Amino acid sequence: MAKVAKPLSLITETPQQGFDLAVKLARIGVKTTQPDKEVLFKLREIYANDADSLIACSQVIAIHFQTVAAANNYWRGSK
Amino acid sequence: MAKVAKPLSLITETPQQGFDLAVKLARIGVKTTQPDKEVLFKLREIYANDADSLIACSQVIAIHFQTVAAANNYWRGSK
Amino acid sequence: MAKVAKPLSLITETPQQGFDLAVKLARIGVKTTQPDKEVLFKLREIYANDADSLIACSQVIAIHFQTVAAANNYWRGSK
Amino acid sequence: MAKVAKPLSLITETPQQGFDLAVKLARIGVKTTQPDKEVLFKLREIYANDADSLIACSQVIAIHFQTVAAANNYWRGSK
Amino acid sequence: MAKVAKPLSLITETPQQGFDLAVKLARIGVKTTQPDKEVLFKLREIYANDADSLIACSQVIAIHFQTVAAANNYWRGSK
Amino acid sequence: MAKVAKPLSLITETPQQGFDLAVKLARIGVKTTQPDKEVLFKLREIYANDADSLIACSQVIAIHFQTVAAANNYWRGSK
Repeated sequence: MAKVAKPLSLITETPQQGFDLAVKLARIGVKTTQPDKEVLFKLREIYANDADSLIACSQVIAIHFQTVAAANNYWRGSK
Repeated sequence: MAKVAKPLSLITETPQQGFDLAVKLARIGVKTTQPDKEVLFKLREIYANDADSLIACSQVIAIHFQTVAAANNYWRGSK
Repeated sequence: MAKVAKPLSLITETPQQGFDLAVKLARIGVKTTQPDKEVLFKLREIYANDADSLIACSQVIAIHFQTVAAANNYWRGSK
Repeated sequence: MAKVAKPLSLITETPQQGFDLAVKLARIGVKTTQPDKEVLFKLREIYANDADSLIACSQVIAIHFQTVAAANNYWRGSK
Repeated sequence: MAKVAKPLSLITETPQQGFDLAVKLARIGVKTTQPDKEVLFKLREIYANDADSLIACSQVIAIHFQTVAAANNYWRGSK
Repeated sequence: MAKVAKPLSLITETPQQGFDLAVKLARIGVKTTQPDKEVLFKLREIYANDADSLIACSQVIAIHFQTVAAANNYWRGSK
């Protein structure tokens, strides 16, 4: 039986999980615009070897991480 | 009878619906500036095959998602 | 008698009016920097047919919409 | 006697004054980095006639306006 | 015994530690997208000698610092 | 005796000091990535004479100023 994907939630237990979620959201944003995996695979060769593209990726992750961190009240209580 | 479009609202039941709304808002921002569908169709060939353009699209979605997530109090209560 | 422009306000009744205001603010930002309508008309030919420019326009609208949405408490109460 | 410049404040009476302040802050940011008026005058010819530069200017104004609007509680009370 | 990395936390004692964390998060964002250290080493030659790339790096740090500062309530209480 | 640098704090007495701090933070972000003063000196010739680079600098300052302004509650109380 195909694994049912967990519904998207912004709540995570730890900041690291929050950062991983931000990375996932940034990538979903790209896949939503370009669903063709072959195209994405070819483009990876380009952006993964381009300094400005990598910095731009990091920026999208930073914006999503800001959202996820606020959603989790910055994990203030967590150990 | 032509379907009456639901008025825009930022309130969604789930984070996934919130993300879909953010994608929609990002695209409305483009269509508001360039309403000509033919032009947009031609341009899609370009940005959908350009790494930096796809990252930039993901960034606009991230900013709108930040707004929609705050509007829904980060869906903290929802299952 | 020349119509007196309504003073700028961030408060709108609906999210759609809020989005329209965000578009207006983004355009005022351009006109404030370049008031010459002829120049703007010529430049429209360029940015309205350039994918990255259209994405950049959508991003400025997204930032203003974030401000307007917060100003209206995300229209939480409104129908 | 040379006019004493009013100390910088983020509080304005109206949203329009708030937007004007955001434009001023965006320009101060450029002048702080490049104080030479002659250089700025020459560069104006370039950015004021470049669509992407004008959009980028509008974005800096949008970020400052977000700050000024929050500072003034979005002028919610004002007429 | 290999040193166990401290789990990621957004809480720091001082603004300087907060800024250092923001720099670290910005870099993790790049490494998450491109884990190959050799590629990153080669790219460093490029972005570290390019004005716009350095400004873009500073911007990603600024976004993360905004998140970390909010997480620490802007270190208002701290000496 | 070498002057001991004051520890970084986001709290300033006035908005102008807050803006100056934002400029300083934007520059620290560049220096953290490229500590070599000679390289930075050479690059200054480029970005300080490039409209888009100057706009990008102003944007990083705007993001840091947003953080510093929030840290100081927008200097609402101050004269």
